[in-house]
Amino acid sequence: MLSTKIGILGGGQLGLMLLQASVDWNLDISVLDGDPDAPCSKLAPHFQQGSIQDFDTVYAFGKGLDLITVEIEKVNIDALEALEKEGKQVYPQPSVLRIIQDKRVQKQFYQDHGIATAPFVLTDSRADVRSNAAMLPAFHKLGKDGYDGQGVRKIATADDFESAFDAPGVLEKAIPFEKELAVIVARRPGGEVRTFPVVEMAFHPEKHLVEYLFAPASVTREVEDKAVTLAVEVAEALGITGLLAVEMFLTKEGDVLVNEVAPRPHNSGHHTIRANVTSQYEQHWRAILDLPLGDTSSFSPAAMVNLLGEPGFEGPARYEGIEKLLAEKAVFPFLYGKKITKPFRKMGHVTVMSENLELLTEKVDFVKSNIRVIS
Amino acid sequence: MLSTKIGILGGGQLGLMLLQASVDWNLDISVLDGDPDAPCSKLAPHFQQGSIQDFDTVYAFGKGLDLITVEIEKVNIDALEALEKEGKQVYPQPSVLRIIQDKRVQKQFYQDHGIATAPFVLTDSRADVRSNAAMLPAFHKLGKDGYDGQGVRKIATADDFESAFDAPGVLEKAIPFEKELAVIVARRPGGEVRTFPVVEMAFHPEKHLVEYLFAPASVTREVEDKAVTLAVEVAEALGITGLLAVEMFLTKEGDVLVNEVAPRPHNSGHHTIRANVTSQYEQHWRAILDLPLGDTSSFSPAAMVNLLGEPGFEGPARYEGIEKLLAEKAVFPFLYGKKITKPFRKMGHVTVMSENLELLTEKVDFVKSNIRVIS
Repeated sequence: MLSTKIGILGGGQLGLMLLQASVDWNLDISVLDGDPDAPCSKLAPHFQQGSIQDFDTVYAFGKGLDLITVEIEKVNIDALEALEKEGKQVYPQPSVLRIIQDKRVQKQFYQDHGIATAPFVLTDSRADVRSNAAMLPAFHKLGKDGYDGQGVRKIATADDFESAFDAPGVLEKAIPFEKELAVIVARRPGGEVRTFPVVEMAFHPEKHLVEYLFAPASVTREVEDKAVTLAVEVAEALGITGLLAVEMFLTKEGDVLVNEVAPRPHNSGHHTIRANVTSQYEQHWRAILDLPLGDTSSFSPAAMVNLLGEPGFEGPARYEGIEKLLAEKAVFPFLYGKKITKPFRKMGHVTVMSENLELLTEKVDFVKSNIRVIS
Repeated sequence: MLSTKIGILGGGQLGLMLLQASVDWNLDISVLDGDPDAPCSKLAPHFQQGSIQDFDTVYAFGKGLDLITVEIEKVNIDALEALEKEGKQVYPQPSVLRIIQDKRVQKQFYQDHGIATAPFVLTDSRADVRSNAAMLPAFHKLGKDGYDGQGVRKIATADDFESAFDAPGVLEKAIPFEKELAVIVARRPGGEVRTFPVVEMAFHPEKHLVEYLFAPASVTREVEDKAVTLAVEVAEALGITGLLAVEMFLTKEGDVLVNEVAPRPHNSGHHTIRANVTSQYEQHWRAILDLPLGDTSSFSPAAMVNLLGEPGFEGPARYEGIEKLLAEKAVFPFLYGKKITKPFRKMGHVTVMSENLELLTEKVDFVKSNIRVIS
């Protein structure tokens, strides 16, 4: 199966890290992305510029391959379904992508399968949102096309209704949570699953973007078990082949609720490249190639800091402070090679490792105050 | 310095692993190799087919770059010297390559610098070897062009003189050694050095090829210190910028002698990709880009098994047993993507990790009996 011709839809940083992991097994990989300068463009064994949302482009790309995967959900699912019908392996399956791609369908899926999630109503318009004042405080999420914190609006009081999307979405009750957790599950076609240790995420206060995370999460064994069980429950309900990253809320009452999921490698697993026996990227290959899943245990507690484009800078990217980071023990910057930086654009990440949470926190602070992505 | 245009002479497996490590920093890398199907050919951001031993080819390749490095010693040093004179950074330095490329010069260098090494005589011909019967038992090594165990002949008794090379070489007294050890040293332009933990190598009985190794070596702290000190001594005597892999003999008397060195990432450091905080490949980039050297400590004891082409098979390579290996905990095959296998050709390696030497030994045996590279 190592000679399988593999295609990745999307050539961003997740694709890049998948490529890096694929080197060990000499996988034959083609990447499709609309941007000729995408992070994968120089490194992919085969790179094709083209829209991952266009039926004909995706279909033609997949025709010459054996196995197609994704590094982003926003792809042409019709084309993937057509390819699947013709006998191509498509993992995650188009049916799973269809559920996840639309946050409305995703939420409904949780409800239908008795999976714990925050209360919500489906809304078709801004007027619809207004008529659900009882849900406030809440978040309004676009059904489709949201990414990296785009497509989410906080509706704290009736004064915020103006900022709701006037398009199909989900109005979700804001949960007064204690922490946000994530678990990455890998599942093989036959059903074998394996999970990575629970991580704890800190989000940027305004941008709804992961700012940094700690692994493992500082939670009780009981919460850990709940989170892992819930994540596996979602993966099994979906019947996904590949990785599923499950983001969850830990409520003040100690309950764990699914927030949302991603059917691919995820920001909350970047640190596994350095800190775990098997990285999430290698695990994705193992799962979709139907190979035995790898050991997910970690060598050391770790934290991951996202390197976001500094506000106020837009243009050719420059990383300031890399050398200071490299001079520290077990501080590992990973740069995505995007030519242009923009405020809050994900430009890279930094993994740090240390024996305990206190030292990790110090290292995270050090990283945050010593590196900037400017222009 | 991360925007430096970098060239690697040689596109084999060491180049491939250098490329893999370069992904984290988005380095801009060009690779030159004579084989259009070399392991790096598909993955390198820029790949050029051409002879690394031809002056004009190497010179033209280097002209458009800022920094040139190597993954093999057998390159055109005159071209590198010309490039260095024009202000290009060439690491390891051509002067160092000149010493190492010829085993005769290398041995003389040790003697001149008081570096402990096995007794030897320089020989110009087979007749010369015959006239040094007092050195027997000995090894006769070709001055130039030996690699992967080619270019070494055992001359145990006068009966073996016929197998000596009739070309300039070194006749080196066979040391009744206890173990063969290796230490990889990294050295920055300013002189900062850092070493990886001492490893212990087991060679194939006939082929003079590393068959497997254990890290760390099972030696006393005193021997460890001697080996590290000696390795650093050689790196400093050479004044090398980059990695220097130093292979050594531990004699039955507990002395440590330099056997030979390689000015680049080395077979004896493959396991560092999985088992150490910083891999030898990342460390090479750090050293030659004049960045702070990384922490070399290991997460776990490890062993590395070379995957050699099975005797009796020559043709398109096929790896038999990969799936069995992947089903084991912390067993990591790395395949080099060479199209053609030949008896004893280096086709890949397998890193295994475990808590102790006994479990490592079991895993090594498991790997050796479960995987074959055939055609």
